[in-house]
Amino acid sequence: MDTIKIVVAGPRGRMGKEAVALVQETEHFSLVGVIDRKNNGQSLRDVEGFSNVNAPIFTDIVECFSETKPDVLIDLTTPETGKYHTEVAIEHGVRPVVGTTGFTKEELDRLSQMAEERKVGAIIAPNFAVGAVLMMKFSQMAAKYFQDVEIIELHHDQKLDAPSGTAVKTAELLTAVRETKQQGHPNEKETIQGARGAEYDGIRIHSVRLPGLVAHQEVMFGGNGQMLSIRHDSFNRASFMSGVKLSVDTVMNLDVLVYGLENIIE
Amino acid sequence: MDTIKIVVAGPRGRMGKEAVALVQETEHFSLVGVIDRKNNGQSLRDVEGFSNVNAPIFTDIVECFSETKPDVLIDLTTPETGKYHTEVAIEHGVRPVVGTTGFTKEELDRLSQMAEERKVGAIIAPNFAVGAVLMMKFSQMAAKYFQDVEIIELHHDQKLDAPSGTAVKTAELLTAVRETKQQGHPNEKETIQGARGAEYDGIRIHSVRLPGLVAHQEVMFGGNGQMLSIRHDSFNRASFMSGVKLSVDTVMNLDVLVYGLENIIE
Amino acid sequence: MDTIKIVVAGPRGRMGKEAVALVQETEHFSLVGVIDRKNNGQSLRDVEGFSNVNAPIFTDIVECFSETKPDVLIDLTTPETGKYHTEVAIEHGVRPVVGTTGFTKEELDRLSQMAEERKVGAIIAPNFAVGAVLMMKFSQMAAKYFQDVEIIELHHDQKLDAPSGTAVKTAELLTAVRETKQQGHPNEKETIQGARGAEYDGIRIHSVRLPGLVAHQEVMFGGNGQMLSIRHDSFNRASFMSGVKLSVDTVMNLDVLVYGLENIIE
Amino acid sequence: MDTIKIVVAGPRGRMGKEAVALVQETEHFSLVGVIDRKNNGQSLRDVEGFSNVNAPIFTDIVECFSETKPDVLIDLTTPETGKYHTEVAIEHGVRPVVGTTGFTKEELDRLSQMAEERKVGAIIAPNFAVGAVLMMKFSQMAAKYFQDVEIIELHHDQKLDAPSGTAVKTAELLTAVRETKQQGHPNEKETIQGARGAEYDGIRIHSVRLPGLVAHQEVMFGGNGQMLSIRHDSFNRASFMSGVKLSVDTVMNLDVLVYGLENIIE
Repeated sequence: MDTIKIVVAGPRGRMGKEAVALVQETEHFSLVGVIDRKNNGQSLRDVEGFSNVNAPIFTDIVECFSETKPDVLIDLTTPETGKYHTEVAIEHGVRPVVGTTGFTKEELDRLSQMAEERKVGAIIAPNFAVGAVLMMKFSQMAAKYFQDVEIIELHHDQKLDAPSGTAVKTAELLTAVRETKQQGHPNEKETIQGARGAEYDGIRIHSVRLPGLVAHQEVMFGGNGQMLSIRHDSFNRASFMSGVKLSVDTVMNLDVLVYGLENIIE
Repeated sequence: MDTIKIVVAGPRGRMGKEAVALVQETEHFSLVGVIDRKNNGQSLRDVEGFSNVNAPIFTDIVECFSETKPDVLIDLTTPETGKYHTEVAIEHGVRPVVGTTGFTKEELDRLSQMAEERKVGAIIAPNFAVGAVLMMKFSQMAAKYFQDVEIIELHHDQKLDAPSGTAVKTAELLTAVRETKQQGHPNEKETIQGARGAEYDGIRIHSVRLPGLVAHQEVMFGGNGQMLSIRHDSFNRASFMSGVKLSVDTVMNLDVLVYGLENIIE
Repeated sequence: MDTIKIVVAGPRGRMGKEAVALVQETEHFSLVGVIDRKNNGQSLRDVEGFSNVNAPIFTDIVECFSETKPDVLIDLTTPETGKYHTEVAIEHGVRPVVGTTGFTKEELDRLSQMAEERKVGAIIAPNFAVGAVLMMKFSQMAAKYFQDVEIIELHHDQKLDAPSGTAVKTAELLTAVRETKQQGHPNEKETIQGARGAEYDGIRIHSVRLPGLVAHQEVMFGGNGQMLSIRHDSFNRASFMSGVKLSVDTVMNLDVLVYGLENIIE
Repeated sequence: MDTIKIVVAGPRGRMGKEAVALVQETEHFSLVGVIDRKNNGQSLRDVEGFSNVNAPIFTDIVECFSETKPDVLIDLTTPETGKYHTEVAIEHGVRPVVGTTGFTKEELDRLSQMAEERKVGAIIAPNFAVGAVLMMKFSQMAAKYFQDVEIIELHHDQKLDAPSGTAVKTAELLTAVRETKQQGHPNEKETIQGARGAEYDGIRIHSVRLPGLVAHQEVMFGGNGQMLSIRHDSFNRASFMSGVKLSVDTVMNLDVLVYGLENIIE
């Protein structure tokens, strides 16, 4: 396999650190530079926590691209910065793999058009955990055969919102392929309010919050004398790196922009 | 082990059928008679579904006791009938094992006193599934070491009430040994109402209802980097028979009334 | 939806009984006759356990077809009888849905050719549990993204063989899409023999046998900081009927023979 | 609650780091000093990774005790060092909480005698995860009521030995309270060797090894129509700290040596 030359933006962030580690560990990936807000001109090995990583630091993305001539930019920064980086990368023929959320439909449309015109592959994904994306995909497929489904998502107790974004996204995908059904017994009654969970178009979602947990979700389908369950457990941030790796390999063979990991997974 | 002579009341009911089967299968149990509303004087083997069971049928409990001289009465009938049978059994020195719910505190007190005076053992239990009782017992023990707990109970979608009686009973047992704690993040927010489940004194209960399921419950404790889960699955009515068997064996050595299977389980 | 006229062969068998119930419960299915070894000319309602089912009994399949003109034959009999019935059905333009295992490749080829020539749809499936088939299908898809997988199958303790047929079939499907990999640590060591389970081309299979269980399987994929699990629980025989129903509906639109439920599930 | 003055030995080790964090986070714990092999006389805040922790470093344990007068020593070092520290601590009236394994029976006996003579509380535990200890305790209790049990333990694929020490310890505890039983069907047959797992006195143990996993174990009991499962998931090293905290609080009220966390858990 040919070596893929990679630049990572935001190397000191939580996800950026994992991305640097991923590039280092992958034989056919080569880290040719990083983009950071400070330490221009130094090497990453001079920064605390990166003593084994020799890669030049650039504060200017254009200079970085012109000096290092990368194939791919991995961007795991903030929405604001991520959008700017994505645009500059496409302009310079560098394929972006971007984990930022918060692109509007208009922004995605414009970037898609840019990518198409320049025939530059690009991948933008709000969730890079391959297992989570497969869980959603399989759930959508199963919904064709099982009309009754409930979702349990479990997270650490520092999470503020319930249900989780992934649970709502899963419910959305399920409702897209099934007819609306009010599940449970028509006369069922909550003797304590909330027992039957949140309702999303007839689908019940239950949010568990406990210290010690990380990020977990189970989608349960019930039918005649049987149950089919699809579960994803994310034990730590490294789980996202499987999707980043897959995206880097895939983006090399794309000449358009793809939004969502589910669209590069068969 | 000495043979225990048993009368079953309500042999044609769903649970009664299982009880007859239990007595037949257990080597040191002997079915000496059954109490039913009809077919007085016939044998159970003349009734559809019991062709292998030879036991006389009585419509009158007193006549039954006087003819068959049983050690134990297993009663799985209705609350009304069950209460009457329990009283008559104690009066006649027959140890009752009763699965009826709905005894008031006054009724239990009076029966306890009768049992004590006559030194007749008796067991009344609303739940005879040994596994479910152990799940509750272990949960109460674990609550001393884990302050954060949530309950998920899962049943078939014909169940009308949520949460289940067992889930509420479990929460009660937990709150009896722990200080009230509002779990989850203090600022957590339901973006869809009900996501965080029913609240019982700070403990969250989630009720899943799906066709195909039977009766299941999981109690989950979270702490520093770990989770402890205790789960009971009831796949069919036979699960109750483990507790009936244990109760019959235990009641032979009792001379008082015990309420609740948890009080004969160590 | 047009009513589908159905004949069930083997109505008194365990699976046949479920099939009769399925046809009765499904609005657009109509039971026009049954094929049995005895009681020719009687109605099924005269047979014990079928008092609500009015359908003529035939001992001769040809006579049955000529009198009742069915669209579909559901056959859940023995291999020997099932093969004969399948052939006669195709000859008479009746679409067979067959749950028999044990067809040889030659037999399947010949039946396929017959079906194709006569343009008669036919479905033969060794496993009719839709959930189990989906579990296998999803597992095969996931194996493209996760190289490490283990299978746990759990059954009642009356099962004689380990691993189960479904577990071996699952492992086969996985190895068909992945490169052989010896999983676990290269230097791992069993301090008690058998701890790491059965090995099928590098995949480990673990067989749990416990009283109370029915038929369950979990396929677990592990990767960077994450786990993806796909689980099927079969709680009773009714689980097979979901696939029979799907097959009856599907076979009406087929004009060839399809082997295996996975090939009619998308 | 009175403040407990604590010394941590081995603060730079993986577990030592967690112990320092635990002491910092716990309101009624106070870190009065640490014992390390280097940096004598400096403060821990001068060591990389501890910039927020102000505690004097001692290379000599006796000097440390005489200067800081601690109530408790937390020792998570090597077996060799741990044994020496434990002895010195008891001699100086400092209560040791020790996570070292590898004490011989003779060494434990001698230390117990020392502790008893001096009336100094001490706790030595090979496993500090409270959840794991409870899982074993509950399993032993359940074995009185369920004769059939299997153990599944799941770990990352860097683990060399199978089954895990905890699984074998669990099986030992189960066999201590049950009569030997050969489980499964008497005529069951492995069509692929190892399917039924490792056997420990009739109990089957299954070892799953997958990347991404951490340390997990499930003990499953099966009976008439039901299953009882007790599961512990250890997601990271912090799981051990719950037991260290409990031990520090408990050791303050002890005047003998206790071996094993299970003996301070009710």
